[in-house]
Amino acid sequence: MALVVLKFGGSSVGDAERIRAVADRVARARRIGNDVVVVVSAMGKTTDSLLRLAGDVSSVQPGREVDMLLTSGERISMALVCMALAELGIEASSFTGSQAGIITDTDHTKAKILEIRPKRLQDALNSGIVPVVAGFQGVSTANDITTLGRGGSDTTAVALAAALGADRCEIYTDVPGVFSTDPRIVPEARRLNSVSFEEMMEIAANGGRVLALRSVEFARNHHVPIYVCSSFTWEPGTWVVEEDPSMEEPVVSAVTCNAAQAKVTLTGVPDQPGVAAKLFRALADSLVNIDMIVQNTSMAGFTDISFTIPQDELSVSIAATEQLAPTIGASTVLVDDQIAQVSIIGAGMKTHPGVTATMFEALSAAMINIEMISTSPIRLSCVVRRDQADEAVRVLHRAFELEKSD
Amino acid sequence: MALVVLKFGGSSVGDAERIRAVADRVARARRIGNDVVVVVSAMGKTTDSLLRLAGDVSSVQPGREVDMLLTSGERISMALVCMALAELGIEASSFTGSQAGIITDTDHTKAKILEIRPKRLQDALNSGIVPVVAGFQGVSTANDITTLGRGGSDTTAVALAAALGADRCEIYTDVPGVFSTDPRIVPEARRLNSVSFEEMMEIAANGGRVLALRSVEFARNHHVPIYVCSSFTWEPGTWVVEEDPSMEEPVVSAVTCNAAQAKVTLTGVPDQPGVAAKLFRALADSLVNIDMIVQNTSMAGFTDISFTIPQDELSVSIAATEQLAPTIGASTVLVDDQIAQVSIIGAGMKTHPGVTATMFEALSAAMINIEMISTSPIRLSCVVRRDQADEAVRVLHRAFELEKSD
Repeated sequence: MALVVLKFGGSSVGDAERIRAVADRVARARRIGNDVVVVVSAMGKTTDSLLRLAGDVSSVQPGREVDMLLTSGERISMALVCMALAELGIEASSFTGSQAGIITDTDHTKAKILEIRPKRLQDALNSGIVPVVAGFQGVSTANDITTLGRGGSDTTAVALAAALGADRCEIYTDVPGVFSTDPRIVPEARRLNSVSFEEMMEIAANGGRVLALRSVEFARNHHVPIYVCSSFTWEPGTWVVEEDPSMEEPVVSAVTCNAAQAKVTLTGVPDQPGVAAKLFRALADSLVNIDMIVQNTSMAGFTDISFTIPQDELSVSIAATEQLAPTIGASTVLVDDQIAQVSIIGAGMKTHPGVTATMFEALSAAMINIEMISTSPIRLSCVVRRDQADEAVRVLHRAFELEKSD
Repeated sequence: MALVVLKFGGSSVGDAERIRAVADRVARARRIGNDVVVVVSAMGKTTDSLLRLAGDVSSVQPGREVDMLLTSGERISMALVCMALAELGIEASSFTGSQAGIITDTDHTKAKILEIRPKRLQDALNSGIVPVVAGFQGVSTANDITTLGRGGSDTTAVALAAALGADRCEIYTDVPGVFSTDPRIVPEARRLNSVSFEEMMEIAANGGRVLALRSVEFARNHHVPIYVCSSFTWEPGTWVVEEDPSMEEPVVSAVTCNAAQAKVTLTGVPDQPGVAAKLFRALADSLVNIDMIVQNTSMAGFTDISFTIPQDELSVSIAATEQLAPTIGASTVLVDDQIAQVSIIGAGMKTHPGVTATMFEALSAAMINIEMISTSPIRLSCVVRRDQADEAVRVLHRAFELEKSD
């Protein structure tokens, strides 16, 4: 008998009817002989409306209280899922993050899981009860309620699957799996039957929105196979699994686009050891996530340093950079918030050197200028003008023939 | 320096503006030198809408899950109150029932408090932090989330005041205190400056809606003075305190009316020992709260037994009584759901024997028939036709001159 963790996102528990549909799916998973643990997010847009309410009440929002506020959301959805299961004759019990033994650090609103003590879940499973666990939340080492931040419910599900030794973690969402690119940009985009953990991490880190990066990292580190599929249809989904070295791998699996990027350039930087270190230490201290970094060839002892960042970290990045500029003798800080990063991702790129040339030729033929480049063993990313990003995705999807089946 | 517990009900935290008003009140209580613990209910009609949602999802609602669902309500209000306090520069931390150490039995949806271990609240107070505690909820001895049922938030506040050795418990609500009767029935009704615990218990048990009976019982047993007042105005409220034997007491303090009553009569009951015991054991097993009981004088070895009950327990009472009737040899079960119970309450009644006559004369002069009578040392209640209940309240309020000041 397999043990599976089923995770349902906000749109999958969005109203009473969707919640009954979740109960049906859980019942079916049980009927075919599985032990089941359910993880749920808050219903629909609950989190957004709670945050709006908080904004109406106060401009000061301590993280501890934001977490207390937001964790009300999953209580509602998980209690309702248990009731819907009860109506189907399936005994179920809801568990908060704390009750499920999800111990985190004390970093409110973006806590990290330190340890999972799933004793109550195991007791429930041993008694034939379906545990329904609140995603996104835990209890800190200081015994306060915490939330795990963006993608937290996926992380809860994968972490529980690892802690319980589950056979797999099924993530139910509003799209039927992982696609070769965003079907809203490229209608011929194809659902992938499977991707490796490494490919999925690159997809998640570079604009793919199906799974949160941290949950995929957790799955890879703990060898938890993930199956991503739609809770709205019965179509097959996408497996996210260990790379199988015995199989020939697709050279390129997916094209992603991250349009919410901005570029900051510091000009006239003295070309001396330690200068870049000072800059990126200052940015790190401001908790900015640097993406690409490019340093120009030095001219007469001076150089330019450019880096890209998520757009919502632009103002804090500008502040940190402008504060630092005089102390390192840099002349000006330039900002460009009209960029996008387009990436091709594929485990087979490691052994196929022609990929870079194909990418550059395709973009060049479409008159799309490449402003910055970065690479990983299984990814190649280019910064382009934002208004050319969709076209870049389309030409790359066609150039690598991603509309064709595996 | 005094320690006070301030409790705010649902209407007092009904929207963002009301929550900021609560923060203002807490700030004022601190400014005049008090240590403050805050207890809040869920916002406005949150509980009702959550129960409606549960009804949409499932007809089966296990108590454990109802409690998980409903306890989301206070998380929202208490986190928001903490944020509003933060904006006023007052450090505050929210605590769930569990975090506040409110240990209950396992009787979901109507749990009883077994013990309070307020260590975290005391630590917060010692650090100058205002603890904001979720009313209505606790954690069971089985480590599950429980709710305290009707009047639960008042009970939380009084129980915390007792456990913390607070000087008083202030209950903020949408009316400015306890009145000599319902001002909607008698416009001249007067706010009482103070009532004794015993009077308040009779008022609460006989139709007064300002305080829940169990919270007053708790306050009396633990000698916690209560001050009831409006959170919408700055008018003075009502003290609920120990009876002061050195003072002359008002003969009658208040007139109450409980219109949601029904009467069940079992006719032709063999007048034998043990028959009534069987009936009321069966009703107790059905968790019915009997109010009055009248047994007629025996005629030829048979008698009638009538009892009154809360109207919402009528159907279960009928079922239990009809099931029992044949086994005790009773002939028929009669139901009357058009009754109301009107009561006069006053600590001075104990020593003023003329009160009964005054009450009966006043009702008789108004052509109001008395169907049943019950008494306690400080209360006299009559069952009347429901359509005469308001008139009965008016004539009694006038007969005892309750519109005059203390």
